[in-house]
Amino acid sequence: MQTDIRHSIPEKAACASSLANVLDALYVLSGKWKLAIILNLVQSPKRFSEIQSEVTGISPKVLANELKDLELNEFIKRNVHATTPVTIIYEATEYSETLKSVLRELSAWGGLHRDKVKQSLRQQATI
Amino acid sequence: MQTDIRHSIPEKAACASSLANVLDALYVLSGKWKLAIILNLVQSPKRFSEIQSEVTGISPKVLANELKDLELNEFIKRNVHATTPVTIIYEATEYSETLKSVLRELSAWGGLHRDKVKQSLRQQATI
Repeated sequence: MQTDIRHSIPEKAACASSLANVLDALYVLSGKWKLAIILNLVQSPKRFSEIQSEVTGISPKVLANELKDLELNEFIKRNVHATTPVTIIYEATEYSETLKSVLRELSAWGGLHRDKVKQSLRQQATI
Repeated sequence: MQTDIRHSIPEKAACASSLANVLDALYVLSGKWKLAIILNLVQSPKRFSEIQSEVTGISPKVLANELKDLELNEFIKRNVHATTPVTIIYEATEYSETLKSVLRELSAWGGLHRDKVKQSLRQQATI
């Protein structure tokens, strides 16, 4: 029993620290769209209309707000090119690149999750 | 150039598919709290008041709603024990365990992010 208690103290601290990390991450990344927009711009720089058509389901108003938030938190840059009319290109910063592992794991899980949802829909259909 | 075009087609499809996966994942996991609550319960089963004290900053009302949502989506189970008064223990399901890699990467990134925020606060303080 004694070893259990000895081991449980650092483990509890590790749990609290990883929970605090996740809370900090969610503080800047929360919401239905931020990680999807970051992934979309990590894949390649884009104009507003391109992001809107690829991140399916987002409204222009919400996208505009999310882009402002992401720019403020240094995940993306807004580049204005002096063409006529002006071209505005959004691109991911190097800081967004640090999210690559998170995005890879989230994408892998999203695929798994869709398969699970499909399977349970099929099961419901056969009942 | 031809090889570039040949290669760009599957790559574009891969980008679209990983974006769709992330959108599907965020559809069930979005919000400031869900992943933190899941992590807290993957670490060990807990009572409502324990979750509330560990997931710092969450209000009882929001926590109650998030727990209902998570139960509906089969991430957690609500176990009622017939003690006096009744004890209700929330625990993570096996499905929550499939999120372990996502949570590990998110926690690692959250740690990095906190360091970056601290550093920029220090820089501001010295200006």
